Amino acid sequence: MLTRAAPPRPLPPGTLVELPEEPTYRLKRRLLGRPLHTDQLAHERLGKPTALAVFASDNLSSSAYATEEILHVLVPVVGLAAFSLVVPITGAMLLVLGILILSYRQTIKAYPSAGGAYVVTRDNFGIVPAQVAGVALLLGYVLTVAVSVAAGAAALTSTFEALHPYRVGIACAFVAVILFGNLRGVRESGKVFAVPTYFFMLNMAVLIGVGLARFLTGDLPTADLEQEGLVELGDPGTGLLLGASAFLVMRAFAQGGAAVTGVEAISNGVPAFKPPEWRNARSTLVVMGAALGVMFFGLSALAAEMQVVPHEDGVPTVISEIGGLVYGDGLVGQVLYLCLQAGTTLILILAANTSYADFPRLANFQAGDSFLPRQLTKRGHRLVFSNGMLALSAASLVLVIGTGASVQRLIPMYAIGVFLSFTMSQAGMTRHHLRLKEPGWRLGVVINGVGAAVCALVCAIVAATQFTRGAWVIVVVVPILVVLLLRLHRQYVAEDVELERDVHAAATAPIMRRHVVLVFIDQLDRSSARAIQYARSLTPDDLRAVHVAADEQAAAELADEWRRLGLARLPLELVECPDRRVPRAALEVVAAALADGQTEVSVLIPRRLYRRAWHRLLHDRTADDIAEALARLAHANVTFVPYHFAEGEAVDTVDVAAL
Amino acid sequence: MLTRAAPPRPLPPGTLVELPEEPTYRLKRRLLGRPLHTDQLAHERLGKPTALAVFASDNLSSSAYATEEILHVLVPVVGLAAFSLVVPITGAMLLVLGILILSYRQTIKAYPSAGGAYVVTRDNFGIVPAQVAGVALLLGYVLTVAVSVAAGAAALTSTFEALHPYRVGIACAFVAVILFGNLRGVRESGKVFAVPTYFFMLNMAVLIGVGLARFLTGDLPTADLEQEGLVELGDPGTGLLLGASAFLVMRAFAQGGAAVTGVEAISNGVPAFKPPEWRNARSTLVVMGAALGVMFFGLSALAAEMQVVPHEDGVPTVISEIGGLVYGDGLVGQVLYLCLQAGTTLILILAANTSYADFPRLANFQAGDSFLPRQLTKRGHRLVFSNGMLALSAASLVLVIGTGASVQRLIPMYAIGVFLSFTMSQAGMTRHHLRLKEPGWRLGVVINGVGAAVCALVCAIVAATQFTRGAWVIVVVVPILVVLLLRLHRQYVAEDVELERDVHAAATAPIMRRHVVLVFIDQLDRSSARAIQYARSLTPDDLRAVHVAADEQAAAELADEWRRLGLARLPLELVECPDRRVPRAALEVVAAALADGQTEVSVLIPRRLYRRAWHRLLHDRTADDIAEALARLAHANVTFVPYHFAEGEAVDTVDVAAL
Repeated sequence: MLTRAAPPRPLPPGTLVELPEEPTYRLKRRLLGRPLHTDQLAHERLGKPTALAVFASDNLSSSAYATEEILHVLVPVVGLAAFSLVVPITGAMLLVLGILILSYRQTIKAYPSAGGAYVVTRDNFGIVPAQVAGVALLLGYVLTVAVSVAAGAAALTSTFEALHPYRVGIACAFVAVILFGNLRGVRESGKVFAVPTYFFMLNMAVLIGVGLARFLTGDLPTADLEQEGLVELGDPGTGLLLGASAFLVMRAFAQGGAAVTGVEAISNGVPAFKPPEWRNARSTLVVMGAALGVMFFGLSALAAEMQVVPHEDGVPTVISEIGGLVYGDGLVGQVLYLCLQAGTTLILILAANTSYADFPRLANFQAGDSFLPRQLTKRGHRLVFSNGMLALSAASLVLVIGTGASVQRLIPMYAIGVFLSFTMSQAGMTRHHLRLKEPGWRLGVVINGVGAAVCALVCAIVAATQFTRGAWVIVVVVPILVVLLLRLHRQYVAEDVELERDVHAAATAPIMRRHVVLVFIDQLDRSSARAIQYARSLTPDDLRAVHVAADEQAAAELADEWRRLGLARLPLELVECPDRRVPRAALEVVAAALADGQTEVSVLIPRRLYRRAWHRLLHDRTADDIAEALARLAHANVTFVPYHFAEGEAVDTVDVAAL
Repeated sequence: MLTRAAPPRPLPPGTLVELPEEPTYRLKRRLLGRPLHTDQLAHERLGKPTALAVFASDNLSSSAYATEEILHVLVPVVGLAAFSLVVPITGAMLLVLGILILSYRQTIKAYPSAGGAYVVTRDNFGIVPAQVAGVALLLGYVLTVAVSVAAGAAALTSTFEALHPYRVGIACAFVAVILFGNLRGVRESGKVFAVPTYFFMLNMAVLIGVGLARFLTGDLPTADLEQEGLVELGDPGTGLLLGASAFLVMRAFAQGGAAVTGVEAISNGVPAFKPPEWRNARSTLVVMGAALGVMFFGLSALAAEMQVVPHEDGVPTVISEIGGLVYGDGLVGQVLYLCLQAGTTLILILAANTSYADFPRLANFQAGDSFLPRQLTKRGHRLVFSNGMLALSAASLVLVIGTGASVQRLIPMYAIGVFLSFTMSQAGMTRHHLRLKEPGWRLGVVINGVGAAVCALVCAIVAATQFTRGAWVIVVVVPILVVLLLRLHRQYVAEDVELERDVHAAATAPIMRRHVVLVFIDQLDRSSARAIQYARSLTPDDLRAVHVAADEQAAAELADEWRRLGLARLPLELVECPDRRVPRAALEVVAAALADGQTEVSVLIPRRLYRRAWHRLLHDRTADDIAEALARLAHANVTFVPYHFAEGEAVDTVDVAAL
């Protein structure tokens, strides 16, 4: 009963059909490469250094803009005093980073297979709260792309000023290139990732090292504040500072929260580590945290010491200015500066790229739980979740274009989304410890409890201080999306419940008592002849041809021709249709045939298939209109009997002049 | 064998199906009224006074802008001398009018059933030249609409200056109202038409009469030329006038050609006259010509005598200025002025309306000859050729908006199109006389020969003098359209030839040797169960279920379930599909089944019908994709087996929180 066929065998030579691929498919194949087969899904295991390169780019690249974002909040309000605030604020954020590292160490151990916020929340709080985490994460991934390409474009235009006017275009081009690469199926090959990540880290080490050396030798230059128009602001009195700026410091801290984005990446990817997976992942996490800490602190300290003022539109970037000052104008300095900028641009693009792995994977996960459209579970031509990638690109392009590729305007949305998912994840971990009470659970509760509380606090700070600066978008969008996802889920569940009810009984149910075949005939031509031929190969209880007589004269002629045809088995029924609504008349005929509720009706409709699109435009789409009208009726099975116009000769031999 | 069914009988009570109308149809019905049945097509016979009102509005309304258009050409160049030129040029155009009247009297007698340029040209020169006449006529009808609504808007805004900025919008609104009225099926009821036509003629009679009386009493006022900035131009010397202006006079004459548009209307409508049709039509034609002649000449004479200067943008119109001057500022004068403007506006709208009868009728005619898309032969909801009306409206709106509702810019296109069709028609009549040699044919040859020559000359004058002012559009568009129409015709003929080749043999051809039914199963659910149930009611030589295994695990589960189902007649075939291109795999399976060239394959595809559009968006359209792929194969008959999701309960009882 069950035959497992080989892949469809090649057709014997000389058969009627040849099956060249469609032109659109040939183009796709040329662009994306040959299709990958499902069994080519492979997983690479990563050693710690490679794993750091693969998973850390998002997190480490945050150092490229975190210091600048803190300064962006402070400098316009408090002027020079900003430089005495930036290092303490950086320190506070590093404390948060430390707590997050400790917390995610717990997650890695508890969820060695997949420890993203979605899974942790689903496991510990249930599927509905998990959607909040899921939405926050998806938005976070979208913002990772937007922020990273915007910052990448800023790094590039800082280096080459002539490109400045094309900043938004450059950011969009980055998205396009990353999308194309991922649709082709860029594998998360460690080698590719290692180069830019370590190159960036090396550049940062050199920058901070040289800066430290010049600081120790008292040789560190200071930015020309007069040029920046900042001297007039002067140094506000300490009293003013204390009074006015509790809120301001919180805002600066909130904006600096962008620094810790991407911390969760390693906990999502534990299975990719070489065994013992969770141990290796944990130590990689600590290394990542340490590296970020050094870079972030180093950059903030250098910026403070050299009094580097961020520019209104973010170009040139603070890193670019620090690099320029630290390295100076000599040839070696110029080369080092270019390396620094190249490394920064590259790691930012790499960071955007990581979302192209994470977003489609999570979307596939949520769609598998029926909380997102199922199309997101479909693997494309090259085995990647193409639909998810397209959605991610579209959403991030909206943000990039909408904000004019401004990192400063994107960060409030980014920070609140990321800390929301952190909070859900850490709260889930706390619950996990309380539920399972595994060895060491008490310490776990403390660590993750503190983590959750701190993340919730940061989240609240961001929402409170940055609400009007973009955080409101997330505050508004998250609940709306969650409600939509729940609505969508209800629909899927309702459909599945209905589709699976008594399915075996339905499949083996007795057939209907009667089978009626109606052949709809418009005029007697070869396409109708095909339908008649097909109809005669069926063996129903009742077989009729039906003509809807929108034009009485044509109907009379058809009836005459039919009589001459002499098909004993196939009587022609003429249906009056004085209002010329052929689909409606067809609907009524078929409904009448179905009226006893014990009949299966097969409706045969001749369908002409034209060789060119414009040929089709020359005709009504009556066949499709009838089929569409009949779609309302249960047990009305519409069969299109195809008629293909021949290629070539018939057309060219018609002599118009002779008409 | 042949049963003529009554209109589909109402379903017996308690049947499965109820057939409420779709909401879109209910809206259509509300907007357009109840549908008209084909047998409600009726034809009114018109007496001469009514016929004049019905057919003459297009022609008579030309007097509303003809004088102005002549002045528009002359005044900017020769200043005051324009007023000595306008009457002679009007006289020349009236001579052309006289020749046309004589010529069309011949046409009316020779073609008493339908004597439009298309039919006359087709009869006498063949179908291809007829397309030139057809295209010229169709363009003429489009321009009638555009010119008339533009002139109507000018008349309205001349009266109410506050409306001036909305001129283009008003012209477009006129088109919309006329379209709506015609889609509802405004009948060519003589009563409706008589009121504005005779009201306009009455107003013109009063205007010219009062003007003549004031002229005879030496009381006719003169426009304030200083205010018009015309005095400085002065009166150029006669020498200059003669030298520079042969070309100018020809241009003015060409622009005045707009006056005689619509002359052919009566010859198109002979069958609508009371018997003896052709005699009545002929005398009505003469009356129309005389009326137009009096009005056109009277207005030109008044404009010349009072030195009325046309305005650059055509508002206020020359008629409005003449009316203002002739009637003066008294209360009676004001009332008479308002009546004049109202009459002018109304007859212009009526003139536009006539195209809504003529264009769709001619388009239906040409489409019936397979030179225009066949959709144009389809009568709509209210028995009118709705598609033709929509095409006419779209084309005229393009012209109205494109020219900013400027009569002056539209006239060159109008004149050349109209005179082109006149020329074709008269030349055809000349050939008609030469071919048939009916009594009086020699006089006919002279009359129509002169008519053809004069029309060709006017056509050449318009093309030569107005080429850069818009005539080029017609010169370019007509040949392009003619080529397109011929290409389209070739395609229709080729299709018909192919479709009708050996049709009786094809309809009675023996059926294919084998009939294979393939049921495509995605997963085992109620929609598949329906398809299985339907499949089991068929009796083919070979019946198989086919699953394209894009996901191997799902395929294995399906195979297990199938085994449990135990349907002896319906084996399940699993088709490997490692590249996940389900439609392509389906295509290859069906092509293999068809390979012997002696097989009919019925492909059953379960198709889920969702209750809401957004429900459908939640799913791939695999069923449609497969059907589309299979459309390439002859003898692959795709049957959609419908499954309708139930209304209501199932959906609402799902408890999301319980998941």
